[in-house]
Amino acid sequence: MGIVFVDITTSLDGYVAAPNVCLSQPFGDYGACLHEWLFHPATNSDDVDAKVAQEMFANTGAILLGRTMFDVGEEPWGDDGAFGMPCFVLTHRGKSMLTKGPTTFTFVEDGLESGMQQAKAAAGGKDVCVPGGANLAQQCLRAGMIDQMRIHVVPVMFGAGTRLFEGQEPRAQKLGPPLIRQSHFATHFVYDMRHSR
Amino acid sequence: MGIVFVDITTSLDGYVAAPNVCLSQPFGDYGACLHEWLFHPATNSDDVDAKVAQEMFANTGAILLGRTMFDVGEEPWGDDGAFGMPCFVLTHRGKSMLTKGPTTFTFVEDGLESGMQQAKAAAGGKDVCVPGGANLAQQCLRAGMIDQMRIHVVPVMFGAGTRLFEGQEPRAQKLGPPLIRQSHFATHFVYDMRHSR
Repeated sequence: MGIVFVDITTSLDGYVAAPNVCLSQPFGDYGACLHEWLFHPATNSDDVDAKVAQEMFANTGAILLGRTMFDVGEEPWGDDGAFGMPCFVLTHRGKSMLTKGPTTFTFVEDGLESGMQQAKAAAGGKDVCVPGGANLAQQCLRAGMIDQMRIHVVPVMFGAGTRLFEGQEPRAQKLGPPLIRQSHFATHFVYDMRHSR
Repeated sequence: MGIVFVDITTSLDGYVAAPNVCLSQPFGDYGACLHEWLFHPATNSDDVDAKVAQEMFANTGAILLGRTMFDVGEEPWGDDGAFGMPCFVLTHRGKSMLTKGPTTFTFVEDGLESGMQQAKAAAGGKDVCVPGGANLAQQCLRAGMIDQMRIHVVPVMFGAGTRLFEGQEPRAQKLGPPLIRQSHFATHFVYDMRHSR
């Protein structure tokens, strides 16, 4: 049985996007620097960022994402849809299924539980990745659906924007120490959400 | 010339205290776990947490702190005032200077600039440490007074409380990669604020 993991990049001060996210600026006014770790040329075969990026897909069988992320991502993801697997888009505004090369986008209107169920079924025993946006990640966390969080913290301060952590129940949920890898561009964390201390 | 550094502990979701900070709960309802890294018995002479804790004082000549931190800290810090050096408490409510063993607490009513100047003068060429609270750290960051941030991230989710990062100007302030050390209890970051990429 696969796991469900969030895989998301934030600024040091906890923002997944700068202000004014729109089609021409998917990560807001000055948010493009968040993803340098994904797109810089690998410096060598041991490149940490390249390894971490590969792991996002290594055992992943389906993607569950939010509608805003789809809307701002559709164009940059190009004709093959980038993910190369079944993707489920949680939305309040229905849309017919899209096929882009090896990627399918299915629009789910009947809620988070249904979206997650469909993603798990499509994953066929592999993992389900929740790459964002923040609002969907928050919904999944609130619902206790997340087994693992992979957080990439970029050494930049935004001061404002869309926060990764917001709208959760007050509690002390103790986790174990994370797995950490550091590159020039980001600190990569893996937190296991299933093994509380 | 010494540096000015923030030295503060947060939850994974960015809270320096859980809700309901008061005299009997200096870190809020369920915030005590934030400081296990400081108070657990050292497991061996290479204990990461013990080293990081020592570094807080190694080259520090004065402390600048906020009034709420003083109010909730005064009793737990005990008869020697814990810091063992001149401390300056930024406040709107005046109070006579306190001496507790090797520690002095001077209450500064004429603003942040004055408090920082007094702390630097008292430090006599050594570093000034800003241990909190979050509001004072935010004021110092906004004023561009911070040379280094030492952030200790504890693997716990609070969901609510007092955020470390709040009320800053929107911007993209790119920093270099942090120095990182990992213990069972916390991930210790050192970010240099003076060398933007």
